[in-house]
Amino acid sequence: VQTVAALIFPDFELLDLFGPLEMFGMLPEHFAIRLVAERERHVASAQGPVSRADDLFADDLFANGRSCDILLLPGGPGTRREVNNPALLDWLRAQAEGAAYVASVCTGSALLARAGLLDGRTATSNKQAFAWVQAQGPRVDWQARARWVEDGRFFTSSGVSAGIDMSLALIARLHGEARARQVAAWAEYDWHSDPGWDPFAELHGLV
Amino acid sequence: VQTVAALIFPDFELLDLFGPLEMFGMLPEHFAIRLVAERERHVASAQGPVSRADDLFADDLFANGRSCDILLLPGGPGTRREVNNPALLDWLRAQAEGAAYVASVCTGSALLARAGLLDGRTATSNKQAFAWVQAQGPRVDWQARARWVEDGRFFTSSGVSAGIDMSLALIARLHGEARARQVAAWAEYDWHSDPGWDPFAELHGLV
Repeated sequence: VQTVAALIFPDFELLDLFGPLEMFGMLPEHFAIRLVAERERHVASAQGPVSRADDLFADDLFANGRSCDILLLPGGPGTRREVNNPALLDWLRAQAEGAAYVASVCTGSALLARAGLLDGRTATSNKQAFAWVQAQGPRVDWQARARWVEDGRFFTSSGVSAGIDMSLALIARLHGEARARQVAAWAEYDWHSDPGWDPFAELHGLV
Repeated sequence: VQTVAALIFPDFELLDLFGPLEMFGMLPEHFAIRLVAERERHVASAQGPVSRADDLFADDLFANGRSCDILLLPGGPGTRREVNNPALLDWLRAQAEGAAYVASVCTGSALLARAGLLDGRTATSNKQAFAWVQAQGPRVDWQARARWVEDGRFFTSSGVSAGIDMSLALIARLHGEARARQVAAWAEYDWHSDPGWDPFAELHGLV
């Protein structure tokens, strides 16, 4: 079983987080989900609903240099503040070093970019916030038209619902495409399994 | 602003709840979201992550016969227990009486059925749990092939991700289709806006 550590911070975007966690959560034989927050255990989303973190940065799961297996970062308006939070960026760097995979949804890639973790890599992000995200990582090869981008062990997705498609791709990488298709069928979800499918880049005027 | 009261109970399904709440949450000028639980404020989802209820059944929001404007019910494995919870079914009946709209996702419609709220109405549910849900409401006209079903002020959706499509339809009913399309575009979501679109009925052997 791999530990999926999902970071939450004030004003995270609900679906960025819980879309992917629904997909991983359908395979409890493969994935154990932990919500992680910096210092405060209760964290309000941008839409209002409050989640409770299972672990804080100082807790045992991450003590003594231990890393999660899969690090998941949602986006949301809170990223505008967290890109300037050195404690959070330090934690990201430490976790990303040991994690088998690092995945971000929407403006979550801005956090990875500011931590320097995407330098020299290809990545994508939310289409409406694209200019701002680009400015957080001038040495990143940002892809405007992409549902998600895979670069080695880094997966970055476009806005909000794109995280669901990306997480199914990560499940496919780990456990085969048939398993990912089964998860999508259980969720009655129409998986866009082509990472090049992205009508929103044009809709939001990026291409 | 209309109050969207979303019921949470142990082992609710993450995406059933947070897919629709993401859509409503994108229009804070129209919708205020409240998570509601019976007695315990912290409620673990079937996938693990814990949410904190804003209100309990006994709290002010629902005191003195007051109702929410929109009642939202997720599904999930916890519904197998809650269909036998008289306190929850009583609360549903009381809330549904005053609510402008009642919406369920996945096996959430089993709760409405057991409360008698769907008698004589058309409704749908999760495709893999369909036989069990049907048995909860023998006087309901269950539709096997439907992404969601609208019957007056009752909206019921198919499994998990179908709740997103249904909530966009409810937003369209209240604020026009253009507004719903804008929300879908913000979420970079490929809205299946035809309630008859349902490849999963066939995939799961129902038709």
